[in-house]
Amino acid sequence: MTCNTQMHHARKGAITDAMRFVAEREELDPELARKEVARGRLIIPANVNHLKGRLEPMGIGTVARVKINANIGNSAVTSNVEAELEKLHFAVHFGADTVMDLSTGGGIDEIREAIVAASPVPIGTVPIYQVVQSVKQTPDITPQMLLDNLEHQAGQGVDYWTIHCGILIEHLPLVMGRVTGIVSRGGSLMAEWMVAHREQNPLYTHFDEVCEIAAAYDVTLSLGDSLRPGSIADSTDRAQRAELKVLGELTERAWAHDVQVMIEGPGHIPMHEIERNVRLEQEWCHEAPFYTLGPLVTDVAPGYDHITSAIGAAMIGWYGASMLCYVTPKEHLGLPNKDDVREGVIAYKIAAHAADIARGRKGARDRDDALSRARFRFDWNEQFRLALDPDRARAYHDETLPAEYFKSAEFCSMCGPKFCSMHITRKIEEGIAELAAEQGTAREPAGLPGD
Amino acid sequence: MTCNTQMHHARKGAITDAMRFVAEREELDPELARKEVARGRLIIPANVNHLKGRLEPMGIGTVARVKINANIGNSAVTSNVEAELEKLHFAVHFGADTVMDLSTGGGIDEIREAIVAASPVPIGTVPIYQVVQSVKQTPDITPQMLLDNLEHQAGQGVDYWTIHCGILIEHLPLVMGRVTGIVSRGGSLMAEWMVAHREQNPLYTHFDEVCEIAAAYDVTLSLGDSLRPGSIADSTDRAQRAELKVLGELTERAWAHDVQVMIEGPGHIPMHEIERNVRLEQEWCHEAPFYTLGPLVTDVAPGYDHITSAIGAAMIGWYGASMLCYVTPKEHLGLPNKDDVREGVIAYKIAAHAADIARGRKGARDRDDALSRARFRFDWNEQFRLALDPDRARAYHDETLPAEYFKSAEFCSMCGPKFCSMHITRKIEEGIAELAAEQGTAREPAGLPGD
Repeated sequence: MTCNTQMHHARKGAITDAMRFVAEREELDPELARKEVARGRLIIPANVNHLKGRLEPMGIGTVARVKINANIGNSAVTSNVEAELEKLHFAVHFGADTVMDLSTGGGIDEIREAIVAASPVPIGTVPIYQVVQSVKQTPDITPQMLLDNLEHQAGQGVDYWTIHCGILIEHLPLVMGRVTGIVSRGGSLMAEWMVAHREQNPLYTHFDEVCEIAAAYDVTLSLGDSLRPGSIADSTDRAQRAELKVLGELTERAWAHDVQVMIEGPGHIPMHEIERNVRLEQEWCHEAPFYTLGPLVTDVAPGYDHITSAIGAAMIGWYGASMLCYVTPKEHLGLPNKDDVREGVIAYKIAAHAADIARGRKGARDRDDALSRARFRFDWNEQFRLALDPDRARAYHDETLPAEYFKSAEFCSMCGPKFCSMHITRKIEEGIAELAAEQGTAREPAGLPGD
Repeated sequence: MTCNTQMHHARKGAITDAMRFVAEREELDPELARKEVARGRLIIPANVNHLKGRLEPMGIGTVARVKINANIGNSAVTSNVEAELEKLHFAVHFGADTVMDLSTGGGIDEIREAIVAASPVPIGTVPIYQVVQSVKQTPDITPQMLLDNLEHQAGQGVDYWTIHCGILIEHLPLVMGRVTGIVSRGGSLMAEWMVAHREQNPLYTHFDEVCEIAAAYDVTLSLGDSLRPGSIADSTDRAQRAELKVLGELTERAWAHDVQVMIEGPGHIPMHEIERNVRLEQEWCHEAPFYTLGPLVTDVAPGYDHITSAIGAAMIGWYGASMLCYVTPKEHLGLPNKDDVREGVIAYKIAAHAADIARGRKGARDRDDALSRARFRFDWNEQFRLALDPDRARAYHDETLPAEYFKSAEFCSMCGPKFCSMHITRKIEEGIAELAAEQGTAREPAGLPGD
């Protein structure tokens, strides 16, 4: 098969349209984008078939803005095509940079086709979910079935696959004694297969064939972290680290095929271990983009795990992760609906944006500054317009002060007209300027560190 | 006046009932609690009059669990006594460790009395809000009015006051050029007074008299950060740092009166400046407990500022802040109602708990481990019971699988019965154990850093 990947073109010295598009979006020199793609530090998941459709190429890597992914998809218990297309719409509307269709229920092919056709952002899948549906029991899966399904999904235009190729048979004993065992669905299925057959992971043994299919369609590999910790107790344990080492080895093997790669990451990690997780990934996986699920920084808040994980996501983005997979309020409890998608996406837009600011990315703070200036001017409509979720901001404001008159009022219901600190500041601005003139410009408190 | 403070007793070598109560709650040696109170690193805000009522003493400081505060109180625009008592109930029910009554509307005395009478947690206020209500214009306030009101509120049993004594007339020119000016209500009122009178801050010039009243009733001083940044653009600027220096000076003056002190902190701070803010406070304010408002790590998400700020709060708690003042989803938009109180408190319980874990506090992870074990056992009811918000967790689960039968089912609607990774792990546990026996115990992946 021929190789059609962005990495292949980049290594040959060609700047593709997709690289040019990404460079413009990210305000990068196109040649830098090319070099980073060639180096494997920047990926552009863009299946050649999705590129013929609606896809607008998306760059994921250290030189790009921190990205977020939203998971959608049905389960055997609930949802259908229309509901999933509505979730896709919500996800993209509120700012998801990629979307994964994790359907495990009925009509998987139909849902996937509809989503790829409708989506302007890269679509990821976990192919094993569909393969499992075609057999009676997981051990009935053959390596050829796996490869055939990859070929099938590549043809449909899927931009990236999560492949659970790094969990090896020798890792399984490391799971014993864990508090929450294996919490990756794909990972647990591969484990089940290996236990039944007493054989090595077929996605590991057939990895070169996986790469050949990926190379033909330019499907990016998202190397799955089957052994990610599902609880704080299991964080950064031997099982997790053992698999991460293998993902680093597979990264080099994929790169030998000019196949683009990102590395999936945890999971449940306490704050003081987050930076270490990034450094291990960078060292062992050769700086391939890190794509993390949260991490959740505590296990005690089911119903609010978009928040427990947004804390970890913001931090890991600051430390160097390139894409943050959202977690919704329904995590651990049920399948998210479209409202949960909204909550999850906004929590992660916050995390990614905060990470861009902390990384010192050029221009990252512009929107904050513009919104804060509007806030200080009491230009409520402009403040809403610049908010990540304008409708929510407006609705909360209007709950107590709905009249249009209040859209330029110098207060809100939090403090009322007499106690608004910004209103008072504006009132005394001239007085402060006079005071400054009286005091002389050079009078400043001693002993402060320089700016 | 006599001195009745916990610090006074501690310095005399006495372990009070309050210290003993706090030591038991925090699993500390009572003598350590006494020493820390004497040193000023641990405070127990406990007005002698509230101690006669329902107060259960609360310790705030490095040796204690990270605490959270919930702000309630009405504004001129909305709310009344009943609504505020309901917010108090919500705040305490969901886990607020202290509550501030920030009422600025009508019936301030009535609301405060009702709240102190009903509250088992320390109550804080900002006395200037009531003083302003008694005059036509802010500049009409006299120093004596301020002192009289402090005496009045101390008599009512208020446990701590935010006093805006650190903003000096020479700081005001530093506000020019800020994006959001002064965003502390009390701070802006003191600034207005100073601009009108061309005189120094009366709370600074009369600080010893403030301390004498505080000493008589054991009101803890929360030294207000009038110049905290209200936007990322203003973060850690000269104005903020100039005031922080003065708060350090006033800390030592209060301690000379045996008066307990904590230091209020920002505000809006990007992630990469959070640790520096803690270190500056510790150095300049002699390790007095740091009591921070968030901080918010971006300005772009009005309607979700409980999340933007929970990120900063978790991090600042990890770095060393002792109490985290919550922010609700209504921040910047309107007065929070009881539902907002719930969202804010839970977001901050998450932040404080995550900080305790990251600090390595003994036993901090016990609840996480218990919940995760229940999760892996599919003991749904126990999982809900251990959640920070059991009702929410149950409601989300039951949205798709309400039947009691599913409370022991080995799946939820997220993955359905066939795709639950924990269910699969349990199914193959025996197989893994056999595999481990076959492989021999010593077989483990090479090259991993030690645990």
